[in-house]
Amino acid sequence: MDLEASTSTPTSTMEVHKVAVPKEKTTLDSLKHFLVEFFFPDNSMHKFKNKSFFMRVVLALQFVFPILEWGPHYNLNLLKSDVISGITIASLAIPQGISYAKLAGLPPILGLYSSFVPPLVYAVLGSSRDMAIGPVSIASLVMGSMLRELTLVNEDPSLYLQVAYTATFFAGVLQASLGFLRLGFILDFLSKPTLIGYMGGAAVIVSLQQLKGLLGLDHFSNQMGIIPVIQSIVVNRKEWKWQALVMGVSFLLFLLVARHISSKWPKLFWVSAAAPLTSVIISTIFSIIFKVSHHGIRTIGHLKEGVNPPSMDMLNFKGPYLGLAVKTGAISGILALTEGMAVGRTFASRKNYQFDGNQEMMAIGITNMAGSCTSCFVTTGSFSRSAVNCNAGCKTAVSNMIMAIVVLLTLLFIMPLFHNTPNVILSAIIITAVIGLIDIPAAVKLWKVDIMDFLACMAAFFGVLLISVPMGLAIAVGISLFKILIHVTRPNIVIMGNVQGTKCYRSISQYEEVTGVPSYLIIGIESPIYFTNSMYVQERILRWVREEEERVFMLKESPLRCIVLDMSVARIDTSGLAALSELKKKLGDKYLEFVLANPVGEVTRKLFRSKALESFGPERIFMTVSEAIAGTLIKFEQDSSPLNQ
Amino acid sequence: MDLEASTSTPTSTMEVHKVAVPKEKTTLDSLKHFLVEFFFPDNSMHKFKNKSFFMRVVLALQFVFPILEWGPHYNLNLLKSDVISGITIASLAIPQGISYAKLAGLPPILGLYSSFVPPLVYAVLGSSRDMAIGPVSIASLVMGSMLRELTLVNEDPSLYLQVAYTATFFAGVLQASLGFLRLGFILDFLSKPTLIGYMGGAAVIVSLQQLKGLLGLDHFSNQMGIIPVIQSIVVNRKEWKWQALVMGVSFLLFLLVARHISSKWPKLFWVSAAAPLTSVIISTIFSIIFKVSHHGIRTIGHLKEGVNPPSMDMLNFKGPYLGLAVKTGAISGILALTEGMAVGRTFASRKNYQFDGNQEMMAIGITNMAGSCTSCFVTTGSFSRSAVNCNAGCKTAVSNMIMAIVVLLTLLFIMPLFHNTPNVILSAIIITAVIGLIDIPAAVKLWKVDIMDFLACMAAFFGVLLISVPMGLAIAVGISLFKILIHVTRPNIVIMGNVQGTKCYRSISQYEEVTGVPSYLIIGIESPIYFTNSMYVQERILRWVREEEERVFMLKESPLRCIVLDMSVARIDTSGLAALSELKKKLGDKYLEFVLANPVGEVTRKLFRSKALESFGPERIFMTVSEAIAGTLIKFEQDSSPLNQ
Repeated sequence: MDLEASTSTPTSTMEVHKVAVPKEKTTLDSLKHFLVEFFFPDNSMHKFKNKSFFMRVVLALQFVFPILEWGPHYNLNLLKSDVISGITIASLAIPQGISYAKLAGLPPILGLYSSFVPPLVYAVLGSSRDMAIGPVSIASLVMGSMLRELTLVNEDPSLYLQVAYTATFFAGVLQASLGFLRLGFILDFLSKPTLIGYMGGAAVIVSLQQLKGLLGLDHFSNQMGIIPVIQSIVVNRKEWKWQALVMGVSFLLFLLVARHISSKWPKLFWVSAAAPLTSVIISTIFSIIFKVSHHGIRTIGHLKEGVNPPSMDMLNFKGPYLGLAVKTGAISGILALTEGMAVGRTFASRKNYQFDGNQEMMAIGITNMAGSCTSCFVTTGSFSRSAVNCNAGCKTAVSNMIMAIVVLLTLLFIMPLFHNTPNVILSAIIITAVIGLIDIPAAVKLWKVDIMDFLACMAAFFGVLLISVPMGLAIAVGISLFKILIHVTRPNIVIMGNVQGTKCYRSISQYEEVTGVPSYLIIGIESPIYFTNSMYVQERILRWVREEEERVFMLKESPLRCIVLDMSVARIDTSGLAALSELKKKLGDKYLEFVLANPVGEVTRKLFRSKALESFGPERIFMTVSEAIAGTLIKFEQDSSPLNQ
Repeated sequence: MDLEASTSTPTSTMEVHKVAVPKEKTTLDSLKHFLVEFFFPDNSMHKFKNKSFFMRVVLALQFVFPILEWGPHYNLNLLKSDVISGITIASLAIPQGISYAKLAGLPPILGLYSSFVPPLVYAVLGSSRDMAIGPVSIASLVMGSMLRELTLVNEDPSLYLQVAYTATFFAGVLQASLGFLRLGFILDFLSKPTLIGYMGGAAVIVSLQQLKGLLGLDHFSNQMGIIPVIQSIVVNRKEWKWQALVMGVSFLLFLLVARHISSKWPKLFWVSAAAPLTSVIISTIFSIIFKVSHHGIRTIGHLKEGVNPPSMDMLNFKGPYLGLAVKTGAISGILALTEGMAVGRTFASRKNYQFDGNQEMMAIGITNMAGSCTSCFVTTGSFSRSAVNCNAGCKTAVSNMIMAIVVLLTLLFIMPLFHNTPNVILSAIIITAVIGLIDIPAAVKLWKVDIMDFLACMAAFFGVLLISVPMGLAIAVGISLFKILIHVTRPNIVIMGNVQGTKCYRSISQYEEVTGVPSYLIIGIESPIYFTNSMYVQERILRWVREEEERVFMLKESPLRCIVLDMSVARIDTSGLAALSELKKKLGDKYLEFVLANPVGEVTRKLFRSKALESFGPERIFMTVSEAIAGTLIKFEQDSSPLNQ
């Protein structure tokens, strides 16, 4: 080839940049950097920089007790808003609390206890202004379904309570530890798609179980599977009571219509907020007037007046049920935390204030630990009540305190009124709450956007439905992790070409204006090169090379001379380094040049340390694909120029 | 800003390319494409393309029985080489086989049986020319350590044999299924660093256990932990026999020196190949002359002459030990396969011939299934013997057949001679074999190149040493997978700048000639954006923005106006898409522009399908960072030009 002619091509006049090896760091430095990035990505200490000792103490106290930060600026205007929203959420919290306690298999009054102490504790520790604390459906149902096995072994209600409080304590310990040890990222492993499937499945099961109440059945399966539940309904069809069914369905329709109105016209949020309490009041009056209990419709029954009794002595850290308590606490605690974090982030983002995930986990964890000593079960920030709280115009956590005061008054003075509330109303409230967890549009979107996410969602859904609620969660997490491994095991590898008129190289299959470079095969890897895929990457590249050689041979184009690997997307480990060396050798055996373009900092450092850089030679590592082509072209021309022959 | 002046800057004269959304594929098409890439990345069917029916049948038969491919071209010259190498590896296989059977807790003669049938079966089915089939140390030791618990329950040797054969059968089934179902990539999850640690730990334990033989002890721990082994040695110090120790250490030194010579001068490979048999012969003669058994040195004892008896009737697929057999088979089978694949790939690459991993797994699996019916235990391609085979000049799998014939002759005629071979010699052979598994230089290199790989290696090492051999494997795999998750949870995020004189943008920390662009923050993510890191990516980017705003404010530079996210390295899932939308909203609240550069095909498609593309607007997605800057700069200038105000 004529050297003169070739130098006039635009590529070869280009300056070639040296790929710099990042400044040498010791292995321990890298480890330290990694640990800091891992545990303190938010650089949470930056507030403390350049401050006096006194200010640091103040800031530290404010960090632990956010109430010290906003409390001093509190005024009457804020209070007005908080009182309105506090009363609004209390009207929702009372019927929901009773229902969710029933869902967890606990005495209804625990639902009220749990709406009293935890909101007060959280108001001091929490940084979210909108979060309404109390029992939530998903954690209650998990608790109920997991503790159900106790009722099979032992009918003793005080044992059930003991295990429930102990589980609540462990949930709190786990939540606080995750926050304290800055391991909050573990929650991210429960991906949204799997949660959609999981919650949908749980909602279906819970709704089916509420048919016990709606149909007024006396006997019902203790199991959570879809098959035993349907069996129970069919087998006990002689127990069906039309009175219960009519009453239940009427109130269910009322609640659903109220919910629909509020979701259609957000300004009417109070319609759905007031509906549950309205239903309870109406049905209770109805129940008293018509003496429904004489028609076989069950009512809540006697509830003891008074505030939360201490339950410290019921925490039991030994005995045969400790394992069950730990497991139940762990799973319901994680799910409660997931909901709480989502609630906190959503409203912090909507109103644009800071929300520190790890700190919030500690707040919720301590709240639950305190709750377990005062006759409460697992609580967290509830999505539905927080939304109402926000819509009702809450300003600070004082709305939680107001709610707690309203609940306290209820506990002290109007408990006997609930005596005649029919159970069927609680079933209707539970169904309305959980039906909102079934998110079909989200599942459809997953199907359209990301098939793997859709499969994960479905697996979690059917795992809950067909196996069990805790197993469904295990399946959901397993699939989420498996998805990552699959992506890392089979990364995308693309063939790239030149974008006409530029020095850019892009995937041939993505851009139409991209053309291949004769004698070159440019390969881009859209993933790190790890031990899980190093073999695949190697074999897949060799297959591209083989196919390209066949194609070039068939079409009689100029033969393949050089493979450029665009590393821009890659991290690498030692197996990946070995694969690159192996590839270089194998391509060398075919008399093909193999060069790397754009290795990132960490990759360059590892290439350097592993001596792979030496075996490649710095002249085979380029900053860009275009420089790689220019650089190798010059070499080929020199090799084939008459002077060298 | 003056519009006229700005058009003369090089960036704004640039053509802006539209980012193409790849051709629409249905969800099912994507799934199909994914499955094909996942299970058939090597496109193994390409040989069958454009062939007649007859040729396809021939090719299919050759695929199943590679002997049909090379058999017809076999000639006397090849045979000569294969006979020499076959005899060489036989001389190694006989003493090693006896030793490894002892390592697995089986009668020594099984080592010879396992060096007779499996090599013959493999010679017909296998595609590797160099692999020498037989028992290997790591699989034998795992088998021995896992079946050891049987001896604690039941002293019946026939039960032990039954479980061992059944485990071998399951190992074969597992291996063949992995190959048939094309799941060979599962082996890749056992990364090299963890294997180094695992094998090192196992080697230490096995070596310590051989002190029983070297010291001539009668009583010894049945457990595999390092502590009980050392205890046994100390507690039973009255049983130490100096005669055994002197003899053992002498032969151990002899073997180690021979190995050292061969590794230093590869041409003298026969020194280490011949050493074990020489030791056996010398020690046996010595033993006969000096009647060593009278001095308390144990010998192998009576070995039955004759070929492999059938053992089909000893396979036991029910009873209490089935679980143990399955577990033992699975773990020893996987480890055997890992060694076999590594051996096959290494020598195929050295001699440059094709090696099909999935097919090879089927071959080894069927070999083991056949072996389990003919009194053999788990076999695979042994690294040490294959290396000798290759060095001795083997050409085809016929060398395996020659080896099998030599072993057959041994079984038929010279078994009684081993009667007087002292056990201490077998211990010396085992130690020499496993000491080669301790690879300290490799561990040092890991420490230098990749700290995470080093930690994984050490965890596996101490897991084996301090807990147990199977648990060590579980820890090793767990850590390998955890490493991936960590990388995906905390991806590298870098700040990029312009490489002076080009349109390239690279990491500021990597290249010195890179400078920032005023008013711009250019961020590159070196990882996919998944659910595990979407929250981190979002918060980390907001932190960069906050820090950049503070820096700009301090230095009184021009204020930040636009964030460019270089997506070139990313895959994305639905959580990642949500994070991008969230980021856009949050940056929008701060009046900052947020644009994407270079999303790859799949990301573009997902952006499009999820409607995120619409919310971004196509004018905020660019092909390159440089076009993104040019594009937004024009917009800023128009916004601020006097005409628009």
